Amino acid sequence: MTTLLLLDATVLTLSPDGSRVQPLAHHDVLVEGQRITHVQPTGQADPSHFDEVVRAAGRVVMPGLINTHAHVPMVLFRGLAEDVSIDRWFNEFIWPLESNLHPDDVYWGMLLGTAEMLLGGVTTVADHYFHMDVGAKAIAESGMRGVLGWAMFGSQGQAALDTTERFVRQHHNSADGRITAAIAPHAPYTCDDDFLRGSARLVDALGVPAHIHAAEVRAQTDLSLQKRGLTPIQVLEQTGLLRQGTILAHACGVLPSDIELMAEAGVGVAHAPKTYLKLGMDVTPIPALRQAGIAVGLATDGAVSNNTLDLWEALRLCAMLQKDRARQPEVLPIAEALLIATRESARVLGMADRLGAVQAGYLADLIVLDLGGLHHQPLHDLGASLVYNTLPTDVQTVIVNGQIVVRDRVLRRIDPATVVHQASRAMQRLAQRVPAQRIQTYQP
Amino acid sequence: MTTLLLLDATVLTLSPDGSRVQPLAHHDVLVEGQRITHVQPTGQADPSHFDEVVRAAGRVVMPGLINTHAHVPMVLFRGLAEDVSIDRWFNEFIWPLESNLHPDDVYWGMLLGTAEMLLGGVTTVADHYFHMDVGAKAIAESGMRGVLGWAMFGSQGQAALDTTERFVRQHHNSADGRITAAIAPHAPYTCDDDFLRGSARLVDALGVPAHIHAAEVRAQTDLSLQKRGLTPIQVLEQTGLLRQGTILAHACGVLPSDIELMAEAGVGVAHAPKTYLKLGMDVTPIPALRQAGIAVGLATDGAVSNNTLDLWEALRLCAMLQKDRARQPEVLPIAEALLIATRESARVLGMADRLGAVQAGYLADLIVLDLGGLHHQPLHDLGASLVYNTLPTDVQTVIVNGQIVVRDRVLRRIDPATVVHQASRAMQRLAQRVPAQRIQTYQP
Repeated sequence: MTTLLLLDATVLTLSPDGSRVQPLAHHDVLVEGQRITHVQPTGQADPSHFDEVVRAAGRVVMPGLINTHAHVPMVLFRGLAEDVSIDRWFNEFIWPLESNLHPDDVYWGMLLGTAEMLLGGVTTVADHYFHMDVGAKAIAESGMRGVLGWAMFGSQGQAALDTTERFVRQHHNSADGRITAAIAPHAPYTCDDDFLRGSARLVDALGVPAHIHAAEVRAQTDLSLQKRGLTPIQVLEQTGLLRQGTILAHACGVLPSDIELMAEAGVGVAHAPKTYLKLGMDVTPIPALRQAGIAVGLATDGAVSNNTLDLWEALRLCAMLQKDRARQPEVLPIAEALLIATRESARVLGMADRLGAVQAGYLADLIVLDLGGLHHQPLHDLGASLVYNTLPTDVQTVIVNGQIVVRDRVLRRIDPATVVHQASRAMQRLAQRVPAQRIQTYQP
Repeated sequence: MTTLLLLDATVLTLSPDGSRVQPLAHHDVLVEGQRITHVQPTGQADPSHFDEVVRAAGRVVMPGLINTHAHVPMVLFRGLAEDVSIDRWFNEFIWPLESNLHPDDVYWGMLLGTAEMLLGGVTTVADHYFHMDVGAKAIAESGMRGVLGWAMFGSQGQAALDTTERFVRQHHNSADGRITAAIAPHAPYTCDDDFLRGSARLVDALGVPAHIHAAEVRAQTDLSLQKRGLTPIQVLEQTGLLRQGTILAHACGVLPSDIELMAEAGVGVAHAPKTYLKLGMDVTPIPALRQAGIAVGLATDGAVSNNTLDLWEALRLCAMLQKDRARQPEVLPIAEALLIATRESARVLGMADRLGAVQAGYLADLIVLDLGGLHHQPLHDLGASLVYNTLPTDVQTVIVNGQIVVRDRVLRRIDPATVVHQASRAMQRLAQRVPAQRIQTYQP
């Protein structure tokens, strides 16, 4: 097995209860194969005994960031749906644009977005998109870790469930275990109950998690109550999708009674704050969810609402939006924000036993940060700098599953020039909106 | 006079009414001395005729960003007052910390913050801080443009006004015209009416603008009304400070009647959205202010609330927070955000006739951006990328007053290693809080 030594770093750890940031100065991280074997004071390990050494003196090592909800290939549509209402965003922009998508576009879009994320310190993504077979190929090649679901609308019927089943059987646990498959119906308002039940049967049969949008805004909850007397969360419960391991995207419009159901079921929530601000949406009630014991993780959503896949920006917006909503700057302090970005994001993906901490036995998904930039100086408080000052460009080296995939800001497995060229090639066709042609209608 | 050619850039311009982004592809910007002389299609100018040439093919040239309200030397205290209420922020952290300040600290802090800003594309700052004589020295050396006010509390009495008068006489219009002096009483709640009147007399006598915090949160307005039946804006009006050219920081807590007074007087408003989120404050009512014709500009405030001096982050938060507050994603569209970042920020400083546009006759404060990073690809919409995707690290070259101060991300006039060393040297002393020793008490 390949061995790797991260030498003489400041290692970010949190106190067991998550209430304090506890940096370990002058520590080494030892990796064997896919896993961390030791985190120990510098001086005990001999660098000459390791296959690869990353000299990290003066740098910070922390768990790779985890993007708990994205539509990565949508980077292709960046900047094409600006300053419009959610209604128009779906019906006049996104869904018409997506009617032009070829599998090839998804492949190059996934590689482009993955390259952006790896360079920004994101080592795992839970992605929800079309043509996920080629998406999985891109993830496998990039070296990233992914929880991948092939997006389905109810209108696509049994054929979509069959495609998903084939996808899961082929890709689950592939790429040295880096790829986990998921069952990805779009949302309660785009999938009827039978389709949701069919999705739940796949979850049972295949033993993989579900990943679905739910109660994105309060208006969806209100409309669902009007139409059928049930909230979107109650619909998920009745159809068997509200269960341990399910990833709920957004949950901005949940009621207190929904939160009880979610906590009992053991679902996790993906929180994408930039999208909420930009689209004028409600904001995930993080304190209430966490109070109920529900895991909340960070997310970027797609680049057509979030514009980038920068999870550092999501991290500080997550903390700041809760302070803003509560009108109390004490809410969601720095250690809690870092807990959400690491252990809790891992818990949303059902991987808290192996991701989200720099700890012996955990998977070696690690990032090395250079906080020497002037925007961090003087560095009085490491936690504050990580939450409020860090830019994706501060990330120097990225390790996934024990393999170095970015070294000194250079991608090792993706050629960015080729990816940008291929993604841009399709631009003209992709940028055409044919509103009559849309894969779905937004009518919650 | 030195001549400079920016060759073959995409030049950012906005339509005259500010409603559309109009990039000029393949254009040159010609500079003679401090000013832009021509903006013209590439091919007409001969590069060999210029003292300096910046090759900008595939890059974007736009006006340097303008930070309309900061306390730059507070970078020294970065990360020292996190997750605390405004009350504690002032009384237990900021004002005790500032009681340790030496002029030397201000000098190095100003250089450090200026270096961070220049590298991030900020070419002008309106700063409000103590020991501004050494602050001005740092600004002069850095090559940046500044509107500099020596912060005063009413408790300091006539001595402070005298110091300011000496400061203005010595520094106004210095550094090749890069430094404008300002009269900087802290706020209506820390300066009594006599002191504010004394400040207004200095504005009259010296012909320089005033720069003051006002109605930072609605609670200040309510308390002022309770205590004396006047809003902070009315207090400024009665004491002679609500006048053409005055820079009001924040104005988050103004009433509709205040907005009328402000519009009549011709003041400008500095908007620092990250601070408002982080401290759980109200948000500047930008649409109402702009509707009334009041100039609103972007700001970072100090790094103890904003953590960095990143004006790109302020730009996107400015747009997103208004969408959020209105619950309408159509509010504050991209072109308007860029207008606020450029021409309107210049107007807040009374410099709209010479800053904020890439236009013949304007001062040559220009930045060159490389939007080739993966987080911009594919680049469908330049305006969207500038507002929602741009990082300080995308800035390549920075020109102030016709002089190149950053070239290919290297500062030409500041040695960052020395500055960081000197700023860190004072860390131990500066980080000590002696709550009994504070320069002021927050009790609005």
